[in-house]
Amino acid sequence: MTDITDLTQYMTRLGEGAYQASRDLSSLSTEQKNKALELMAESLSDNKEDLLEANKEDINKANESGISSALLDRLELNEDRIESMISGLISISKLPDPIGEITNLKPTPSGINVSQMRVPLGVVGIIYESRPNVTADAAGLCLKSGNACILRGGSESINSNLAIYKNLLKGLETSEAPNNSIQLVETVDREAVKKLLSMKEWIDVVIPRGGKGLVQLVSDEAKVPVIKHLDGICHVYIDGDCDEDKAVSIAVNAKTYRFGICGAMETLLVDRKVAKSILPKIYDEFTKEEVEMRGCSVTNDIISAASASDEDWVTEYLAPIISIKVVEGIKEAIDHINNFGSSHSDCIVTEDLAKAELFLNKVDSSSVMHNVPTCWADGYEYGLGAEVGISTDKFHARGPVGLEGLTSQKYLVKGKGELRGN
Amino acid sequence: MTDITDLTQYMTRLGEGAYQASRDLSSLSTEQKNKALELMAESLSDNKEDLLEANKEDINKANESGISSALLDRLELNEDRIESMISGLISISKLPDPIGEITNLKPTPSGINVSQMRVPLGVVGIIYESRPNVTADAAGLCLKSGNACILRGGSESINSNLAIYKNLLKGLETSEAPNNSIQLVETVDREAVKKLLSMKEWIDVVIPRGGKGLVQLVSDEAKVPVIKHLDGICHVYIDGDCDEDKAVSIAVNAKTYRFGICGAMETLLVDRKVAKSILPKIYDEFTKEEVEMRGCSVTNDIISAASASDEDWVTEYLAPIISIKVVEGIKEAIDHINNFGSSHSDCIVTEDLAKAELFLNKVDSSSVMHNVPTCWADGYEYGLGAEVGISTDKFHARGPVGLEGLTSQKYLVKGKGELRGN
Repeated sequence: MTDITDLTQYMTRLGEGAYQASRDLSSLSTEQKNKALELMAESLSDNKEDLLEANKEDINKANESGISSALLDRLELNEDRIESMISGLISISKLPDPIGEITNLKPTPSGINVSQMRVPLGVVGIIYESRPNVTADAAGLCLKSGNACILRGGSESINSNLAIYKNLLKGLETSEAPNNSIQLVETVDREAVKKLLSMKEWIDVVIPRGGKGLVQLVSDEAKVPVIKHLDGICHVYIDGDCDEDKAVSIAVNAKTYRFGICGAMETLLVDRKVAKSILPKIYDEFTKEEVEMRGCSVTNDIISAASASDEDWVTEYLAPIISIKVVEGIKEAIDHINNFGSSHSDCIVTEDLAKAELFLNKVDSSSVMHNVPTCWADGYEYGLGAEVGISTDKFHARGPVGLEGLTSQKYLVKGKGELRGN
Repeated sequence: MTDITDLTQYMTRLGEGAYQASRDLSSLSTEQKNKALELMAESLSDNKEDLLEANKEDINKANESGISSALLDRLELNEDRIESMISGLISISKLPDPIGEITNLKPTPSGINVSQMRVPLGVVGIIYESRPNVTADAAGLCLKSGNACILRGGSESINSNLAIYKNLLKGLETSEAPNNSIQLVETVDREAVKKLLSMKEWIDVVIPRGGKGLVQLVSDEAKVPVIKHLDGICHVYIDGDCDEDKAVSIAVNAKTYRFGICGAMETLLVDRKVAKSILPKIYDEFTKEEVEMRGCSVTNDIISAASASDEDWVTEYLAPIISIKVVEGIKEAIDHINNFGSSHSDCIVTEDLAKAELFLNKVDSSSVMHNVPTCWADGYEYGLGAEVGISTDKFHARGPVGLEGLTSQKYLVKGKGELRGN
């Protein structure tokens, strides 16, 4: 069993171990990495009972402490969910390897040969809550991109995470990847998170996955770079020149595909030109779906929604609630989104291509969309194969982050002894 | 004159102004931006006397306070240096515009159309020391990449910076770019730097250009993302299978092209196989160039250099001094560089391509080089047109940072009303 009596020593050991592993990992071949992923999947598959048993412990504790049914659901592992962790690892093994790719060969004034090679970031810290499947997903994505990882799951899922981790490790140990490629913080002490966030010497990036509280804590405490995933206050703007049936179905899908995802629409903006004809249709659909509507005063002259307060325009409900605002055309819509949105994903519904172009250019969000619901915002749906999270930062990685977001590029410079200044 | 009595209010005004300007700036056409750059250059050209006079004030003050001749030299503006600021702006106007470029159109599982569009970061803060030319260079690079900027120069060059800034502004005001696209912090109060580093709401990235002290301060205080430019402890490794003449000339050029640049070699590693034959040649050349040599004990059995201490392997001299170590082949060289280097630029001299490959793969630096001196590390020489700095970070931008380093990519998603989950 791991010695965690001295937390600083323990975390330093994890950091150093990850750093050392990252050096070897960075030059493993694609085949070696894929083999390791397969062995990890196999090991999970051979030890499902272990995982279910450990999960039962977590579930029992959670029941005793009386957590919400939504959290309980996230925490639960069952046959299906274990299968999907296993197939997740297999699909990661089938993704193209970003590492080693050489691009951007440029003409240079002196004729020296300059290009860029894609390399791992090094050591990635992942801090996540409840869902134990992240343990396998994140470990797989980091390994495939040649990064060592240090995982820190939520205290409520510690037994499940440990069981998954130990079985991943069994697979890893029979592969050619270093054993310290994947490490789990085996204590629920909150101080461990702060240590993780301060270990500049060992850690290249931390990715928080979880609620606003976690992300904010990470963003406040981190001394290392962070790929933030803040809230998704996503908008659908229904333009005056839209196809109304398309507009209604996009708005409904954007909200109801799943209420709890960050790409769910939270505010609907409607051009005054079509408000009278389209709002009653919207009203019927959302009433059917049991979605609570909170409208601006103009909206409420047309349909009888609740009254939206200023707070509503900056709220991520993640629930069957939407706010609705009637605007004077595209300019007001763009301004509203840039002022009140969270730079996540925003959509225009219009048949006017010039207006679509204007919206796509002017809205400053990680995904700008035309005639598709915001709930499409997702790494898999964007063709990235899988995603580590959706970044609302502009820096390094923006929007859904796939394997490439876990990489960097170094310059390769080759010559025949050319001297400078001669 | 600007009101700076309340620093917080003043800095907030700068931040808000820059943020507003960045929104309009992001959608200016390439022609509009180039025209603004030309007008700025013209205005500098029409007002050279202003600049020289303001600079005289700074020089006089500097003389009174007795600063070093190296700093005095950096501070000085003359006809030539003003001409080079002007031609710098003109060459930036001729660089390709990175903004609006659409790439990475990917096949997606659902058939929705997903690609990425290059966009500005938004607001860039530049903090720099002594050299007043940075005021024009940085303003030009930010404008071309569609970013608003807030510039904060050193207190010793405040008059020169103000004069340059006011004349840039004259040009800018006759262009179609917003006046707040370029702002200079017009106070020497150090607290202003801390405010700048904390304005998360307005600022997207801060780039420190200057000595280790400045960069460290920024890195400690910053709440906003930073593109760091730490020290350059660069290595040349002379492999046993090298062409010895080439090796000597590369080592000499790497050190002596300019002692003060971050790409200058600080440590020379020599394979034991060739140490006896090559070190005496190296010794003669560096003696001729008046470079002080500090060697390991094996080195000093062959030539009579001073003795290197442990401190020497982690020192950026930026001066006519080098440390020399004899190593047991490429593996020790790579380990030494990864352990003691600063991940800036490192070179192998060898005729063995397999060893070159190994070195380029295994050395974890922003530039890895084969048979060219490390002093080539430079944005212009890499074909980037110009550089904002050389990043020793892995995150976002690594190595010489050109216009592209000041940009981000957002996802464009287009469809015909496709719904998710149907």
